[in-house]
Parts: sequence; structure tokens; C-alpha cells
Amino acid sequence: MADGGCAAINTKIEEGEGGYILEDVPHLTDYLPSLLTYPNPLQDNPAYSVVKQYFVDVDDTVAQKIVVHKNGDRGIHFRRAGPRQKVYFKSDEVHACIVTCGGLCPGLNTVIREIVCGLHYMYGVSKIIGIDFQGGYMGFYSKNTVTLTPKVVNDIHKRGGTVLGTSRGGHDTSKIVDSIQDRGINQVYVIGGDGTQKGAAVIYEEVRRRGLKVSVAGIPKTIDNDIPVIDRSFGFDTAVEEAQRAINAAHVEAESTENGIGVVKLMGRYSGFIAMYATLASRDVDCCLIPESPFFLEGKGGLFQFIRKRLKENGHMVIVIAEGAGQDLLTESMQSMGQQDASGNKQLQDVGFWISHRIKVHTFADFGLTVMIVADPTYMIRAIPGNASDNVYCTLLAQSAVHGAMAGYTGFTCGPVNGRHSYIPFNVSIALSLSLSPSRIGMK
Amino acid sequence: MADGGCAAINTKIEEGEGGYILEDVPHLTDYLPSLLTYPNPLQDNPAYSVVKQYFVDVDDTVAQKIVVHKNGDRGIHFRRAGPRQKVYFKSDEVHACIVTCGGLCPGLNTVIREIVCGLHYMYGVSKIIGIDFQGGYMGFYSKNTVTLTPKVVNDIHKRGGTVLGTSRGGHDTSKIVDSIQDRGINQVYVIGGDGTQKGAAVIYEEVRRRGLKVSVAGIPKTIDNDIPVIDRSFGFDTAVEEAQRAINAAHVEAESTENGIGVVKLMGRYSGFIAMYATLASRDVDCCLIPESPFFLEGKGGLFQFIRKRLKENGHMVIVIAEGAGQDLLTESMQSMGQQDASGNKQLQDVGFWISHRIKVHTFADFGLTVMIVADPTYMIRAIPGNASDNVYCTLLAQSAVHGAMAGYTGFTCGPVNGRHSYIPFNVSIALSLSLSPSRIGMK
Amino acid sequence: MADGGCAAINTKIEEGEGGYILEDVPHLTDYLPSLLTYPNPLQDNPAYSVVKQYFVDVDDTVAQKIVVHKNGDRGIHFRRAGPRQKVYFKSDEVHACIVTCGGLCPGLNTVIREIVCGLHYMYGVSKIIGIDFQGGYMGFYSKNTVTLTPKVVNDIHKRGGTVLGTSRGGHDTSKIVDSIQDRGINQVYVIGGDGTQKGAAVIYEEVRRRGLKVSVAGIPKTIDNDIPVIDRSFGFDTAVEEAQRAINAAHVEAESTENGIGVVKLMGRYSGFIAMYATLASRDVDCCLIPESPFFLEGKGGLFQFIRKRLKENGHMVIVIAEGAGQDLLTESMQSMGQQDASGNKQLQDVGFWISHRIKVHTFADFGLTVMIVADPTYMIRAIPGNASDNVYCTLLAQSAVHGAMAGYTGFTCGPVNGRHSYIPFNVSIALSLSLSPSRIGMK
Amino acid sequence: MADGGCAAINTKIEEGEGGYILEDVPHLTDYLPSLLTYPNPLQDNPAYSVVKQYFVDVDDTVAQKIVVHKNGDRGIHFRRAGPRQKVYFKSDEVHACIVTCGGLCPGLNTVIREIVCGLHYMYGVSKIIGIDFQGGYMGFYSKNTVTLTPKVVNDIHKRGGTVLGTSRGGHDTSKIVDSIQDRGINQVYVIGGDGTQKGAAVIYEEVRRRGLKVSVAGIPKTIDNDIPVIDRSFGFDTAVEEAQRAINAAHVEAESTENGIGVVKLMGRYSGFIAMYATLASRDVDCCLIPESPFFLEGKGGLFQFIRKRLKENGHMVIVIAEGAGQDLLTESMQSMGQQDASGNKQLQDVGFWISHRIKVHTFADFGLTVMIVADPTYMIRAIPGNASDNVYCTLLAQSAVHGAMAGYTGFTCGPVNGRHSYIPFNVSIALSLSLSPSRIGMK
Repeated sequence: MADGGCAAINTKIEEGEGGYILEDVPHLTDYLPSLLTYPNPLQDNPAYSVVKQYFVDVDDTVAQKIVVHKNGDRGIHFRRAGPRQKVYFKSDEVHACIVTCGGLCPGLNTVIREIVCGLHYMYGVSKIIGIDFQGGYMGFYSKNTVTLTPKVVNDIHKRGGTVLGTSRGGHDTSKIVDSIQDRGINQVYVIGGDGTQKGAAVIYEEVRRRGLKVSVAGIPKTIDNDIPVIDRSFGFDTAVEEAQRAINAAHVEAESTENGIGVVKLMGRYSGFIAMYATLASRDVDCCLIPESPFFLEGKGGLFQFIRKRLKENGHMVIVIAEGAGQDLLTESMQSMGQQDASGNKQLQDVGFWISHRIKVHTFADFGLTVMIVADPTYMIRAIPGNASDNVYCTLLAQSAVHGAMAGYTGFTCGPVNGRHSYIPFNVSIALSLSLSPSRIGMK
Repeated sequence: MADGGCAAINTKIEEGEGGYILEDVPHLTDYLPSLLTYPNPLQDNPAYSVVKQYFVDVDDTVAQKIVVHKNGDRGIHFRRAGPRQKVYFKSDEVHACIVTCGGLCPGLNTVIREIVCGLHYMYGVSKIIGIDFQGGYMGFYSKNTVTLTPKVVNDIHKRGGTVLGTSRGGHDTSKIVDSIQDRGINQVYVIGGDGTQKGAAVIYEEVRRRGLKVSVAGIPKTIDNDIPVIDRSFGFDTAVEEAQRAINAAHVEAESTENGIGVVKLMGRYSGFIAMYATLASRDVDCCLIPESPFFLEGKGGLFQFIRKRLKENGHMVIVIAEGAGQDLLTESMQSMGQQDASGNKQLQDVGFWISHRIKVHTFADFGLTVMIVADPTYMIRAIPGNASDNVYCTLLAQSAVHGAMAGYTGFTCGPVNGRHSYIPFNVSIALSLSLSPSRIGMK
Repeated sequence: MADGGCAAINTKIEEGEGGYILEDVPHLTDYLPSLLTYPNPLQDNPAYSVVKQYFVDVDDTVAQKIVVHKNGDRGIHFRRAGPRQKVYFKSDEVHACIVTCGGLCPGLNTVIREIVCGLHYMYGVSKIIGIDFQGGYMGFYSKNTVTLTPKVVNDIHKRGGTVLGTSRGGHDTSKIVDSIQDRGINQVYVIGGDGTQKGAAVIYEEVRRRGLKVSVAGIPKTIDNDIPVIDRSFGFDTAVEEAQRAINAAHVEAESTENGIGVVKLMGRYSGFIAMYATLASRDVDCCLIPESPFFLEGKGGLFQFIRKRLKENGHMVIVIAEGAGQDLLTESMQSMGQQDASGNKQLQDVGFWISHRIKVHTFADFGLTVMIVADPTYMIRAIPGNASDNVYCTLLAQSAVHGAMAGYTGFTCGPVNGRHSYIPFNVSIALSLSLSPSRIGMK
Repeated sequence: MADGGCAAINTKIEEGEGGYILEDVPHLTDYLPSLLTYPNPLQDNPAYSVVKQYFVDVDDTVAQKIVVHKNGDRGIHFRRAGPRQKVYFKSDEVHACIVTCGGLCPGLNTVIREIVCGLHYMYGVSKIIGIDFQGGYMGFYSKNTVTLTPKVVNDIHKRGGTVLGTSRGGHDTSKIVDSIQDRGINQVYVIGGDGTQKGAAVIYEEVRRRGLKVSVAGIPKTIDNDIPVIDRSFGFDTAVEEAQRAINAAHVEAESTENGIGVVKLMGRYSGFIAMYATLASRDVDCCLIPESPFFLEGKGGLFQFIRKRLKENGHMVIVIAEGAGQDLLTESMQSMGQQDASGNKQLQDVGFWISHRIKVHTFADFGLTVMIVADPTYMIRAIPGNASDNVYCTLLAQSAVHGAMAGYTGFTCGPVNGRHSYIPFNVSIALSLSLSPSRIGMK
């Protein structure tokens, strides 16, 4: 199926007054119009009984455009996330599965935990499995799965990694939907990055083509925070906190040495959010190099000139570089070594070693021996458990996904838009071009 | 001057299409119409030269209402924060002062640092003083102040507390404005809570009455996060992170003891945000008691019944209680001991000891010896430095205040509204009633 | 049985050249002379095969007196801990039990883990139970126990508290030894403080009276580090690390306030080691009050005079007070409220609140409003997991106990004496008077 | 001057009863016999007045041999560290200097701080300078130094690194002693590793040859803990704590991936103490490779066989490797790239990348794609401040050095021997062969 076709099916545009546009998500009734509805079991839950107006109004939408002019257009809106008065699954009918794909990210286990606890305590669901053999999409081809209960997941949010395991690639739509159908699964929760969400979109298409009553919900995962439509991705806050530790170490080393230069390489293949936020948070960085902002080494206004200036002024400096920065500057010989990893991401050269080597060679003439420290805390950042802020965020994210699937929505990812959790159609979350610039940080 | 008058002067309402309302902030030209403007020096700053569209459009406003309906009213908007093309102060004309009031809060030093660095590096301002003798408003009456430079504040964000010192109360408007006038101060940055912001509003009124070219900018501080108009207050994220540590300790103690009950008292006089978020983040809490949600002890549906149930099921439990919860339940004899502290906040009884005592007496009949642990990490939470997330937030907050004052706005506080930093008139930030309920957390 | 008799049986004194004295521990062959021995299974363990001289020489002893003179007496020695060539239990004959008593202490779970793993991996033992119903000695009267395997204990060292639960008091020697006999237990590992070790001594006496082949091994636990014969107790290092956090918070609060005084109450009923070490480690403390060093409040050389001096010089100060300091100064009315807790420890008045109240009243005349912060991090300190240093220490401690019991020693506790792990007879570890003074810290 | 001569001058051996040997340190009166003595000013210090027996008996010695036999030899002893009744410097006569050399190590700033505070508060010394231009021995050739006062060093123990800066190599004995003589320095405190202590020994020889009243005191620094004569080196405890974090991250990554292998490279050129202790402390490591224990890759009993076994059993594993492990196995081609760094240490190949590459190639045949994580937390470990335990240790170390120099001792290093701080002649601390084996850890 062509991308165009995918987009066509996915997109449900509605317009309103003042330039109001709703980019809506699919619903099971789009292709199964006669589905029954049931009252939401939450209304009988004593824990929620004190809460007034608990259910989201079906017409609630969330505005993407928040900086507006007096008489301007209202722009794009998304459907608000949250529990609905009516649900499209009976509690004992639900058979949910959860799968985690791609690299590790702080908070993964919290998302898993809260999908399980949300389904169990809010909706009385007891059939939940985890796709855990080898992890990732490949796990669907295996016979083995793990049964997930509140007891099983009780403490997992205090641990890093993912209890389901994870892998890259291995996506065969047909086999996966066969596996879903064979097992009788009717809610699929897919936690993963860009590639994974594309995979989930194709699974949704195939599910729809076969006319199955199966909700496919995506939970977007990218430690790099490079999904423009949502406010931030889970794990990002924890990653920035941890990244600061490496910056601080590089700062101490540089400061203790004559002409010391500390170089810290941080995650960020196509965006420099972790690098920029860690720089803003630590305040010990002299120079932050990110993919969004090209730079050059030699000549006036170049990096070497800036380094010489800072060393003369200050005697030491700290440089933070995102892994995808300066890719165009790497020599052809290095580029020829480039490879593809299993998920298809371009295998980037190690930019930390490259830039350190270049600086060392260059500054030697001016400063003699320059001590260069290269720290790469990537694995230590990925593997820690979510901090308090990410744990709360992952909880809301997981509950949003559960409320959405129970309410019959499908083919959606979820996440906060201007602070309000929303349902976003797959094609929007994937297609939105990355318009990331430092001003987005500075001005937000 | 009566409150009504204050509100009248403060409020600048503008209306637009579709129910658009702008609650604007005062500007120096409101009462000094012939002020000169200057080009913003940022436009010559090489560090910002790469950034396109750096300046905020003068008509940009930020919508408070983000959950909307297709054809609904657009509601209240605030002026967007950020640098303007034109400023109303020349760099060498600015004489700024900074004062911190009230209790400690993680991030205070970061706000101070970034006001200083923002004024210095963005606007070339060199005359900045800190009101530090005794701290707080009382510091204005003293001859001593401290000169603040980027070098002086370089590392302060890594320390807890406030380098300026702080105190409560002591507000004499006339003397303070005399002091401002005598020293030639023309930008006043006031960091503090509700009472402090009220004080700043009155200072602004008096400044205006005297016709002084003095911008008064407030930076709202409340570790409790109880300012409804802004997304969150600085220090809150750090406080929740730290509060989790106490919850975890109480959980470990309770779990290691037969019928162990851990009680953790957390901050929150009128709102339970820290308690609720720490509960959501830790996932080890059985019961969270907050001021917004009344409870009772005895009988069906009471706390004691719930405790008996949990101890029988689980053998131990953890209760989190915000300091302002259950105030109505304290006995009259205890209430008669109530006092006022210097800032006029009601001196609350120690609810942690009270509830522990009541539970101990009550549960003895059922469970014999029940071990009760009462932890109160309040001082350990207040005194730590801001975490990465709060440091970034404090930086944006401080820079917003600086951009606002330079652009001639006055009588405003600042903070993020739906993720976008905005200028909010004093009367709105003070008057907005506290409509805090757990659903605000659950549904956001 | 009288205390005197206990001591008489327990003590095995041997003398040697130059004033050498060995205070030896009992051995099963003292009363079961015909026991068979077996080769230590460690000699066939490939993991240990590379290690030369692995087994401890049976004649190795550890000198308690380490500061000596050229021609002085050699003094007291203890039997060196470690694996012996011959053991007195076959692997499949061992039936071990573990019990934890008294308050929580960082590292408890590591000790449990390493007794289990030591018995399993070093000696091939598979029958190990935990006395966990209610925890403590009372657990022996219950039918329920928990089976402990390396898998069960695999991750417990990363958690605070004790997985076996704990309680105070409840010691009935006869019932406990009946329970040991009925279950066929032949190795008893008792982890607990002073009172617990006394209980273990009496259990050993009764076991010996009944002529049972049961080794009773004590692992001394006191977060206060107040066992003079061993270098330090487990958990102490972690406790000091954590205590520093509270001191730092009090310092920040005091420093941010005019005439601020931070008071931190730390553990230490009869000794001030935690208070002293945390003071030495943090370097932010002006005054550290400990039980070993009497003080007075009023007059020349008194505490109030010192406080006034420091406030005048510095404007703020931090006081650390151990919970047992200044007990003689508490008023009679307060003492009349004294009670006994279940283990018989004197219930001390809260010295933190008392001293704060006294200081506040006293200093008011000189300084007007003095802000006083009282932090008591006791429960947060007790409940954290052991740090790296304590984990290594707990491992060696547990392995020492296991080697000792397998080698047929009984009625002993273990711990490092001048850096070397040793077996110490119960009576020595209990009876040694507490000759603790600051000079022990300063001069060691 | 030949090494032999150096040893001859340095060594002062005294013998006593029962095989007692004292390896004494030099004293200024060895070559300046008519020096005057003064009463120790500590005896008038009110802070110490409560302490009885504060001064160390001049005949106190510390036994190195602590595991002894009934009638065995008493072995080597060292002079006990601590304050003496008589000192050989008047307070206002002292002119001290401090220099730090070699790599960073947690606690460096605490040692600097406590030498300064010890000299100032205990002995009333006010002339203390830091050799800080470029740091290290090279700093002696510069005109610039920094004046060190208690105020200057007040907070430095909370920061990592060294405020004096550091460098390697650059030792010219004659120029250094000229510099000492020209400035009138009479106490030299040298903080550094093996090479640095050798340098200090030669400085002492030259000082003695010139007949100067200059005490030369060494404070041994090696994060690797590879000085056999002292119990542990400062910073080691902190390093192990931090190393555990990297191990934990590698464990999480490995566990989350099918056939995941986490490799953590830790410091340790010639000894594996950090690797071994971190392994013991974390309990998440399957295999720890250290320089002291040779291994091979292929065949029966080789590393590859063990890896295959663990992956089959467990599905993932963690390997810790000290930087100096397996050096003999690196290919000749890699060895040919070996270089010398400025201090003359052999530049080791990166053993982490080498072993990962070899494992990846080897295990591919059995397991297909094996995910390999290589973490190297070296710079993050070196740069953190000392933990509580290291801070207390550094304080005692610095005070020992100060007491020793004031008492006229020279040509010594200091450190704890079996828990008691002692003065050790340079030649002993340097010459003692490294007899490090895992049994030293296991059995201690």
C-alpha cells in the first residue's frame, strides 16, 4: 500500500468557525459501524466517585496553535485524551498485548506498568500479555509471551530498561496481524520510536483491511525529544538530568588542567534537544554543537577560532556535541565506512572522537599540549529508571492510551499538546517535518 | 488605596473576534506616554545572529483556554513573553535590583543568576544590585546591598537556598519606593509567593502614582505549585523528586515491620500538588490526603476503615498527607493553639503527628502494636538546588522577566501558560481563585 | 542460668609469648568431641582454584592491640575468620536459618543475600530458611518460614530494609531452641544489635546444654557503630553519607536567613559516631553535641555563649545533636514521661525539639526573631540500601559467618578487628565497655 | 645520586623484643641536631582541652603484621601519626606550600582544605601557598602561586578535581629546591602518585644535602588503591561507588536485549581493586578481568567458553575489565602503537574496545547478532567530589601530614596501617612490591 493511500485513510479532517481544523483519529466504527457501546465502568468505581465531571466531553479538542493573534485563524486541533462516557469493549472481552521496540529509554517500564494497571484497575481487564521473546516486533512470531498482572509489574518502574526486552527491525505486517488474529488480541499497545510507529500504522491498515475489531495504539518513544507535535517525549527529562553529570565531570577535568578541553558527546541523531537542554541546565558549557545548526572549523567565525579565544580568556573550556552534529564535515574516508543498523538508522561516525582529534591537532600549534577529555554517557543515560517527572508523565501517557483504546479509537498515538494529552493520528505524528531550531527552546 | 482601585488600574482588557479576550499587562507608556524607544541590542549580538525571527511579534498572545470546542468562545489570552524589537531602556541607563522573599524553594539561585546574566549578556546592563541585608522586603530599608555580576553569580545555581537571604513580612510601601527612588533603581525584580506579589502590586501602584520610570516585575515562587494560571511553579519538579525519597523510606520501614504504617507529611498548605505528584510518581502510596479533598476518620468510608482493610490485605501501608489536609478535623483544643507567622499564613498544626496519634490509638484494638513512622522531609526538600528541568525553567522565567522589563512592561508576573511563557497582570495572578482538584491532575 | 556462668562457659583464654592472649570462640567439639570432619568443598571449586593459600591457617589470630611499644605486651588476640581446610558439616546435612531483629540498618538485605549465596555457592548447601513471620525472634514461634535460594535473594541488596521483616523483644529461649530442634536446624544466623546478641548467647547456652550439633553465629548490627571491638558496624558508612544530606539542608536554610540556626538530630543513643563522622565529613557544622561529651547551656563556656558568639561572627550556624546527648539536662518533668520500648531501650526524649526550644527562648533577647530549623532524617537514613562500601563489607561479614559455622565454631560474632575479619566470643562483644571518646575518632 | 644511596639515607631500622622491627622515618634532627623545640600550641586550644591524652606517645608504633601466631615474630612497625608534645617549628616561622600532581582523584580538594585548616586552626600558621600555575611540579618554576587561607578553601571539598590544577612530569630537582629555598618555604606537602612520591624522595635528598630546615611530606594518591602498605588510598571508596553506576547501566542494557553483553572498562593499570570491589559491591557482574589474574580467550577454560555458557543459561551477561587486564593478549600490531605519556606510564591499548571486538566476532557463530555495550566511566569517576567516607579519611590524612611536619619528621608519606594512621619512609612506600591478589580482597 502506498504512503498516499495510508494517509488518505488515516486522515479525518473536520473544519469549524474561525479557521478551526480538527485532525481527528480513526475509530473502530469507521469500518465497523454497528459496534455496541457500554457504560464506562469507571463511573461505578468508588475511587473516582468524588471526582466531578470526570469524563471528557466527546467534543473536546486541543488547540495546537497557542500563540495567536487577536483576529487570527484558530488552526489545527486534536481530539482530547481521557475517559469517555461510553466504551466499545466489555471488560472481560478485552485481550490486550504490549510490545516495546527500539533503544532503551527511561520510563519504558513505567509505561508498561501503567497500561497494565490502568486496564486492570480502571476497566477490570485481566487478559494482558507482553510480547517478550527477543522483544520488539519479532516477538510476535514467537509462541511465548508473558502474562502481565499488577503484581508482576508492581516494582518495575523502579528499574531501568524494559522487562519485555526490545529489538530493532524484523517487521512483517502480515505475520504480525496473523499472530494478533490467532491469539484473539483486540488491543495492541506499541511503544517505540519513529520506525516503530510507522510499523504500527501499517498494522492498523492491515487490521482495518481485514475488518478486525482491534484497536492499535501507539506510545511514542524517543529519548531525543524530536517529535514536534507533542510537548516532550518520555525519558527526555531524566536524560537531561543524567547528561548534566557527564558535563559536570568534563568541566571539573578541564578546569583542573592547563588548557584543558572537555568534550561530551550526547545523544541526538537529528536533533540537539538533549544537548541544548543539558547545556542550559548545567551552565558549565562554552559551546554546544547540534545537528540543526551547521558550523565550520577553520577561519573567521569557525570553531577553532572560538576555542583559541576561550582558552586564552579562561584557560579551559567544555564542548557539548550531539551525535548527529557536523556530519557533513566528516571526511569522505570516514563516511565510506558508514553502515546501516538493523532499524535503518544511519550509523553515524563517532563525532566525539573525530572532533577531539581535529581540535587536538589544530590547537597544538597555539597551546602545546592540550588535554582533551571525551565523555560519552549514552549508555548510562538510557539505562536509568525514570525520574519523578517522567514517571508522572508516563502514567498519564499510558492511561491516555488505555482510555483511547477502550473508547474505540485506533490508529493513534498519544501525548501532550500544549500541556493537554491528546490523540494524534499516526500520519500526523510521523509526517510532521522536524522544524526544530534553538528558538523553539529559547522562546517557548 | 483600595483593592478595587488597584484592580481597576491594573486591568487592561482588549477584546477580539470569536470571544477573544486579552488580559494585558501595564506598560510604562500608560502613564509616561512620551518615553523614547531604542533598538534591542540583541539584534547586534553575534550569538543570536543565526536565529531567525528572534523577536516576538508585538501582537502575539497566548491562549489560556486550550481545550476548546469547534465553535466555542476563544476566551482569555495573555501577552506573550520574549524579546521585543524596541526597548525602553538604554543599557547604561538601567539600574536593576533583585529581592527574594518568603520560604526557600529549589531554583531561587538560578532565577537570580539568570536575571543577572540575562541583563548583562543580552542587554549589556552592568548596574545590578541584590537586596540582601536580612533579605526580603526589609532589606530595602538597609543601606547595604550587594553588587551582582556574572562572576559573582557564576556557580550559585549549584547551591540550594538564596544567596540574597530571605525573610517574611516587613512591607512598608512608602519606605520601599523611597529607597528605590533614592538609589535611582529603575527595574525591580521581586521573587516571592502570593503575599510578596501582592506587595509588588502595591509597589507598582505607588511607583505609578509618583510617575517614576521604574518597571516592577514579579517572578512567582510557590513550591506548592498552587498558582492556577501558570503551568507549574519553579522548584516544584525538584520538590516532587525529593519527596519521593521520603516516601520510599517510609515504604521500606512499613514493609519491614508487621502492621507497619509509614506516614509522610509533605508541604501544601492549601493545595496537595506535591503530595499528589509524589504519590503518582512513587507508586508506593496507599492513601494520599490533600486539602482539596475532605475526608473523615471514623465509620463507613472513613480513613480508619480503609486502614484496617489495607493492613489485613497487605500487612503494611503508606499514607501521604499534605500539611493542610484535614485541618477541620483537628480538635478545638489544638486549634486554640493556632498562631500567625510573620507573613500572615495560618500556622497549621502538625498534621503528621496528629493523624499518627489518632491512627495508633484507633488501630490498636485490631492489630495490637502498630509501628508508626512519621517522616517530614520539608526542610530537606526546600533546601536542595534545582534539578535540570527546574534550572531550564528558571532560566526561561528570568529571561522573560528581563525581556519584559526592558520592553517597558511593568506590574506583571511571568510564567508559562500552556507551555508558552507569558506576561500576566498582577491582579490576575493574585485574584484567580484556587480551583484545584485532583481531576486537574488526572485529566491534564 | 546466671550471667557469670554464661561468661565462664563462653570464655576460652589461651596465653603465649610476650603477653600474648587469645580470647577464643567456642567450638562444637568442646561438647561434642567425636564429631567427624570433612574436606572443605571449596578446594574443588574451579572459581577458587587459582587462589593460592586460600585456607586460613588454624593457628592464625588477629591482634587487637595495634599501637604498640618496642618491648610492650602483645595483648589480646582473636581467631582469624575465613575458610578452614576441614569442615564439620556435610553440604547436604546443613539446614540453616536466618533471623533479623531490631531496627532497620542499611545493608541488612546484603547480609541475608550473602549468607544464602555463600552457603549455596561455596558449600553446596540448599536448605536455608528465613524466619520471617512478623520478623525477629517471635518468628521462631510461627509455623511459617520462607525458603531462601540465590534466586529469591538475587536483587534484595538493592533495596533498603529487610526482606525477612523485623521486630523487637519477644525472646523465649526454650521455645526458640524447641523450634530449632523440631525443624532440624543446625546453623542459626542471628543478625541484630546488642540485645539480640545477648539473646543469641543464651540460645547458644541452651543448645550446648541440650548437646545439639547446632552452630549459633551472630552478625552484629548497630547503625550507631558503638561496638568497640570491631572496626565499624555495617550500615554506618551509608548512614554517615545520608546524614550529610540533612546537614547540608540545614546549612542552606540557616545561611539563607538572618540569624538562622539549623539543628539536625541524628541517631546515637549512647554514642555520637554518626554525628561526629557526619560533622567531620560535611564541614558545615559549627557545633556537634554527643552523649560521650557532657555540655551545659548557660554561663561561661556554655552552649548559649557559643551560639551568641557564632551568630555575631557569622550570622548563622548549624548544630548537630546525637539523640542521646544532653539527656541529663532534660527537665525532670520531661524525664517523668520516659518509657521503655519493647526491646528495653530507654525511650529518649526528643532532644532536637528540646534544644531548639531552649535556644529560641534564650537567644531571643539578643537577636530578636531567630529562625530555627529542626531536621530529623533518622527514618530516611535507616531505610536506604547499603552503599558500595557497606555492600562489600556485608559480603565479607556474611562469608565470615558462614565459614565459621561450617568449620564448627559456635557462640561467636564476627567482624573486622584492625581490618582483619575475626571471630569474637559473644561475651567479649557484649561485655566490652563502651570506651568511646572523640579522640578515638581524631587519632585513629 | 644513586637509588642505593637514597635508600641508605632514608632507612632508619630499629629492632626490639620478639622480632620487633621499626622502619622509622627521617627527622630534621638527623642532619640538624641542634634544632630548638617548642610546646605544641594545641595544648592551649580550648577545643582540644576536653580531650585527655591527646598527644601521641613518642614511642608509639603501629604493627604492620596483624595476623599473627601465638609465638611468632612481631615483624615490621611504623611510627604512629598524630600530634606530638613538642614541635620543631614556631607558628609564625612556618611557610608551607602544597602541590598536586598526576591524574584527578576524588578527595584531592579535601586534602588541600584540611592541610590549610589543620595548619591554621591547630598550629596558628598563616603563610601557606599553593603551587598552582599549570599545576604539578612544573608550577615550582613559575613566579605565580596562590595564597591559601581557610576562607579560600572553605567550600572546595564539595567540588571535584583540584583547585591547584595538576600536570604530569616536569620534575627538575635542582630547580624545585632552588624555588623552595628562594621563597623561604620550610614545609612542602606533595600530593601525588607513585612517580610523584619518587620525586618527593629526591627533593628530600637534595634538601637534606643542602642542610635546609625543610620538612617534605608526601600524601599518597592513587585512585587504583595499589599501595600495599596502607589500608586504602583516598578516593578509592568514592570511585567504587561511582563505578557501580556504570555496571548497573550495562546490566540493564544487557538484560533488555536478547544475548546482550555489557562490557564495563574500569581504571586499574596494574591492579584490579576498583574492578574487583565494584564487582563485589554490585553483584550484577558475571566475569571480572583484572591485571593480577591472567586469562585466555579460546579453548577449554577460556573466556569465550564461559561467555557461551552464560549466554545459554541466562541470555545476557556483564563483564568488567580493568584497563590493564589481558595486556599480553593484545596483538603485536596493537602493541606497536603503544606510546609513553608524559609521566612515563605505559599507554595502554583500550582493552574495552579490543575485548568487545573479539567477543563479537567469536560469539557471532553461536548466537547471531549479539548486542555489545561498552561503557567507560573513567572520567566521570575521577571528577566527582569525595563521599563522606573519603572526606573523613582525607581529613585524617591531611592532619597526620601536618602533625608530622610540625614535629620535625621529613621524607615521609602517611596513611592508615591496619586502621591506624602512620608515618612511612618514602623508600618503603615506593619499594614495596605489589603483591596484590584477589585473596587479599577475599580474606581481609
